[in-house]
Amino acid sequence: MALVIVSRVHPSSDVWAPEMRRLMPEIDIRYWPEIGNPAEVDAVLMWQAPEGLFERLPDLKAIFATGAGVDAIMGDERVPKHLPLCRLVDPSMTSEMSEYVVLQVLRFHRQEPTYAAQQRDRVWQVHSQPHPHQRRIGMMGLGELGQDALRMLKPFGFQLRGWSRTPKTLDGIETFSGAEGFGDFLASTDILVNLLPLTGETEGIIDATLLARLPQGAFVVNCARGRHVVDADLLAALDSGHLAGAALDVFHQEPLAADHRYWSHPKVILTPHAAALTNPLTATPQIVDNLRRVRDGRPLVNLVDRGRGY
Amino acid sequence: MALVIVSRVHPSSDVWAPEMRRLMPEIDIRYWPEIGNPAEVDAVLMWQAPEGLFERLPDLKAIFATGAGVDAIMGDERVPKHLPLCRLVDPSMTSEMSEYVVLQVLRFHRQEPTYAAQQRDRVWQVHSQPHPHQRRIGMMGLGELGQDALRMLKPFGFQLRGWSRTPKTLDGIETFSGAEGFGDFLASTDILVNLLPLTGETEGIIDATLLARLPQGAFVVNCARGRHVVDADLLAALDSGHLAGAALDVFHQEPLAADHRYWSHPKVILTPHAAALTNPLTATPQIVDNLRRVRDGRPLVNLVDRGRGY
Ligand SMILES: NC(=O)c1ccc[n+]([C@@H]2O[C@H](COP(=O)([O-])OP(=O)(O)OC[C@H]3O[C@@H](n4cnc5c(N)ncnc54)[C@H](OP(=O)(O)O)[C@@H]3O)[C@@H](O)[C@H]2O)c1
Ligand SMILES: NC(=O)c1ccc[n+]([C@@H]2O[C@H](COP(=O)([O-])OP(=O)(O)OC[C@H]3O[C@@H](n4cnc5c(N)ncnc54)[C@H](OP(=O)(O)O)[C@@H]3O)[C@@H](O)[C@H]2O)c1
Repeated sequence: MALVIVSRVHPSSDVWAPEMRRLMPEIDIRYWPEIGNPAEVDAVLMWQAPEGLFERLPDLKAIFATGAGVDAIMGDERVPKHLPLCRLVDPSMTSEMSEYVVLQVLRFHRQEPTYAAQQRDRVWQVHSQPHPHQRRIGMMGLGELGQDALRMLKPFGFQLRGWSRTPKTLDGIETFSGAEGFGDFLASTDILVNLLPLTGETEGIIDATLLARLPQGAFVVNCARGRHVVDADLLAALDSGHLAGAALDVFHQEPLAADHRYWSHPKVILTPHAAALTNPLTATPQIVDNLRRVRDGRPLVNLVDRGRGY
Repeated sequence: MALVIVSRVHPSSDVWAPEMRRLMPEIDIRYWPEIGNPAEVDAVLMWQAPEGLFERLPDLKAIFATGAGVDAIMGDERVPKHLPLCRLVDPSMTSEMSEYVVLQVLRFHRQEPTYAAQQRDRVWQVHSQPHPHQRRIGMMGLGELGQDALRMLKPFGFQLRGWSRTPKTLDGIETFSGAEGFGDFLASTDILVNLLPLTGETEGIIDATLLARLPQGAFVVNCARGRHVVDADLLAALDSGHLAGAALDVFHQEPLAADHRYWSHPKVILTPHAAALTNPLTATPQIVDNLRRVRDGRPLVNLVDRGRGY
C-alpha cells in the first residue's frame, strides 16, 4: 500500500507528506522517480504524468489529481483509460475561487474600469451606480466552484443565473441547461463568469457567437481554463466596445507570452492562474480517504466520469 | 405643513418630490428660494444651507440632511443649534457602502496592487495567498455603515475587529472602544477601514501616530471623510513602505485638485466620493416619516446628538 507523489519540488520541501502522515501514520510515501517496488504502489498523486510513469507502475489502482480540473490528464493519451481518476475538491481552493469571483464581479459592478481610467486621467466624475438587483450575473458551470461562488454573491442582492449541462434547481438562482437554455441564459447576463471544466464540448465556448449573444456592455470573467476562450474573438469584442471588460486568470499558454495583447489591453484585468490554489493542508483528507477506499475496495470519491469528460 | 427642498438641480428634474408625493399625497413641497409663506414651512431638506435660509425661515421645526454624515451642517455656524437635525439612514446607501468596502478589502486581501504592478510589467508570478482567517480587518466606526460592512465581510471568514466610542458586543467581531482600546485595535489590524463620522474628536485621526501603530504592510480604506486623514502622513507611510496601499473615496477638497499626489500614486486607488450615494427612492420613507412626526409632535428618528457631534 504505497502512494507515489509526482512533484516538481524536492521531497524535502514537499508539503503533502507531513499532513498525510499525520492523518494516516501507516502511509508509505515515495517520490517519483524513486518508486521502490512497483508492485507495492497503489496510487499516484500528480498534476501531469511524467514520461514512463505508467510503464513503471503497471499495478496502479488509482490516479489522484492535485487540481480540480483534470483536462491535462484527460487529454494525455499515455494515461490508461481503465484507471479510476479522482479530481480534487478542496474546501480552501473553493473559497479562494469564490473570493476571486466576488472580487471581479464587484469590480465590474462598481464600474471600476471607468473609475480607474478617470484616476489615470485625473477626472473627477461620479457615475450613477446600478443597483445590484438590476445586475444580472450569469455563471457557466454549477459544480463545486460555480455553486459556491453564487452562494457568496447572493448576499449582495444580484440577479443570479446559472447554466449547466443537466437541469438544476437552486434556491434563488434562475437556472438554464444544455444547448436549449444557452441563448436565453446569455441574453440575460451582464457579467458572465466561466467555471466550466475544459472538455471536448466546452473548449472554445467563449467565441464570437457566444459574445454576440451577451448584451452590449457586458463583462466576462474567466477563471476556468484558457482554452475555453477564443482569444481573437474576445479581443475583437473588447475592441469593438461590445464588451466593457474582461478579468482573465487562465490562458492558452501559461505563462502568457510577453508580447500577448492581453497584458496591456486597457479593458483586461489579468492574474497569473492565481484565482484558486490547491492547499495541501485542506486537500489531504480527501486523498487519504480515497487511499483507504482503494485499500478497502470501496468506491472512490470525486471520481471523474470519463464519458462526460469531467 | 410645508417642506422646503434645497437642491442644485432644477425642480423639474428633482427626484425627491415624486416619491414624497406618492407616500404623502397631502405634502406641500416648495423649492428654495421660492418658499412662499415662511410661517407654513416646518422642515427643510438639504445637504448644505444656502445663504439666508434661516433668516427667511424663522419658524422651522427640523432640518433633514440628505446625507448620512452631517459634518458640513454641524460645522456651519449659521445653522441654529436649537433645531433638531436628522441625518439619513438610507438602506440603499448602506448596501452600496458595504459593496465598496467588500470590494476594497478583497482587492487588498487578494494582493491586487502586486498583481496590477505585475500586469503593467508583464511579470507572471504567483504569490502564496494568505487565508482570510489570517487577515485581520479593523473597522473604525460601528454605526449603521460599519456594522453592515462587517456583516457583508463575515461570510468570507476574515478575522473581524471593530472600534467605537462606546463599548459594543457584536457576534463574531472582536470589539474595542475609546482611547483605551485604540492601540490594541490598531496593532491587530491588517486592513483598516474608516467609517467614523467627522467630529472634533475624529478629525485628523488617520495621522502618523495611528499609521505607525498599524503592522508593517497594512492597508487603509477611507470612505468616511477626507478630513479624517492627514494627507502628508498617509503619503509618507505609503512612500516609506510601511503601508502597502490605500483606497480613498473622500478628500479634504472635493473635487481633488488636479495636481494632488493621490491621483498618480501607484499605491492609491481613488474614487470621486462615489462609495455610497443617497438614493431618494429608498431614503424618502424616512423623510416622510419624520415629517409626520414633526406634524404630530412625536420624537424624530435618526436625530443627531449635537453634544457628541454625530
Ligand atoms: N483558475 C483556477 O485557479 C482554477 C482553480 C480550480 C478550478 N478551476 C477550473 O474550474 C473548473 C470547474 O471546477 P468544479 O470543481 O466546479 O467542477 P465540477 O464540480 O465538475 O462542475 C462542473 C460544472 O460544469 C457543468 N458542465 C460541464 N460540462 C458542461 C457542458 N458541456 N455544458 C454545460 N455545463 C457543463 C457541469 O454540469 P452538470 O452539473 O450538469 O454536471 C457542472 O455544473 C475546473 O474544471 C477547472 O478547470 C480553475
Ligand atoms: N464616502 C461616502 O460616500 C459616504 C457615504 C455615507 C456616509 N459616509 C460617512 O460615513 C460615516 C458613518 O456613517 P454611519 O451612518 O455609520 O454613522 P453612525 O451610525 O452615526 O455611526 C458612527 C460610529 O462611529 C463611532 N464613533 C463616533 N465618534 C467616535 C469616536 N470619537 N471614537 C470612536 N468611535 C466613534 C460611533 O460610536 P458609538 O457606536 O459608540 O456611538 C458609531 O459606532 C458618516 O458620518 C459619513 O461621514 C461616507
